[in-house]
Amino acid sequence: MAVAASAPHRAVVEHFVRQAVYSRLGKPLPRTASAPNPLVVNISARHCHLTPEAVEALFGKGHQLQVHKWLYQEGQFAAKETLTLIGPRSRVISNLRILGPCRSLNQVELAYTDGIALGFELPLRISGDIKGTLGCMLMGPAGFFEMSEGVIRALRHVHMAPTDAEFYGVKAGEPMKLKIGGPCGITLDRMLVRVDKSFKLEAHIDTDEGNACNLQPETPCELTK
Amino acid sequence: MAVAASAPHRAVVEHFVRQAVYSRLGKPLPRTASAPNPLVVNISARHCHLTPEAVEALFGKGHQLQVHKWLYQEGQFAAKETLTLIGPRSRVISNLRILGPCRSLNQVELAYTDGIALGFELPLRISGDIKGTLGCMLMGPAGFFEMSEGVIRALRHVHMAPTDAEFYGVKAGEPMKLKIGGPCGITLDRMLVRVDKSFKLEAHIDTDEGNACNLQPETPCELTK
Repeated sequence: MAVAASAPHRAVVEHFVRQAVYSRLGKPLPRTASAPNPLVVNISARHCHLTPEAVEALFGKGHQLQVHKWLYQEGQFAAKETLTLIGPRSRVISNLRILGPCRSLNQVELAYTDGIALGFELPLRISGDIKGTLGCMLMGPAGFFEMSEGVIRALRHVHMAPTDAEFYGVKAGEPMKLKIGGPCGITLDRMLVRVDKSFKLEAHIDTDEGNACNLQPETPCELTK
Repeated sequence: MAVAASAPHRAVVEHFVRQAVYSRLGKPLPRTASAPNPLVVNISARHCHLTPEAVEALFGKGHQLQVHKWLYQEGQFAAKETLTLIGPRSRVISNLRILGPCRSLNQVELAYTDGIALGFELPLRISGDIKGTLGCMLMGPAGFFEMSEGVIRALRHVHMAPTDAEFYGVKAGEPMKLKIGGPCGITLDRMLVRVDKSFKLEAHIDTDEGNACNLQPETPCELTK
């Protein structure tokens, strides 16, 4: 299945151009530019993660998620398939995006604005920590799938490799601050650090947070301890 | 027209209780508690301000806005009347709240999330500075009213009296920072200071900002220079 790679994120290009220019000029790199990796900040719109069983129930026996667009983290993708979510008060969100590949648990990540539209209060949880949360009904072209739990607002977080954690002086599970500039800039407290050697440095914020500060590709962002 | 006053905002009660307790204990007040007025932070959901001419066009000759709920600023109210907004791409927002009393200009204040739903980019403007912005069509029970301009995202701002400005050491038009605590706290940069002797100390943020940090009545807030 051939899907064209996306153009590199502006932050990635800027980071390497900055390093090249400083090196060419023979000048020492400023602290941020000397980071091992560029800081990419992306907005996660509402989405869900599904088990293979849920995908089959919703899209038919043997169905495999199709790649709509590759995401910044290696191997992760937005699927072509979308769903309808029916909330506990029978209100609906259409065209809910599925992120692949499949996982071992079903989880829906919404913004508080979505929770208000659905008419219930979302718990703020670390991705994967869904015990005791409300569920919902998912509707696909081949059938329904009932989630008994798993509808959350994900805690804002930053993915990083061990070299990034070392550069910033942080450990997995610690909070960092993300300062987003521009005419309606904000600083997000408590960005949870998630470390894995497969991770590329990327901060994930939700649509409420992205709209609060009108995050654009050229908006300056800074990650601090 | 008799409309019951709302219960005082939790921040107001806390401020005066804190001052009374410190005074009773004979202890010096901490800096924030010694402020002349409590800091109230309220979320402004999308709304519009109308001229008397627009109200007549939309609701009928001689129509006066009715008070649904008094707001924290003296004399300001959310009206019982609501409107339908038809955006430049023919998409619609229903039940748009009108704030009274009438003003000398028509202005619609939306969050970026609303702008995305309407399918166009909102300009970020100080309330009242609407020159060159896009307009929209408003629909009421008695007719339509076309706004040639005036659909904006309002710059976040804080209302204060001269005594508050003196306490915080700021002048009208200067930016301040508003730190909002809690498990998904944020700091909002560039809260524009607006000073008038009729103003009560109140920070206005929009629904995107309020949802980004899940602002609740008990959430601790701090205003700094």
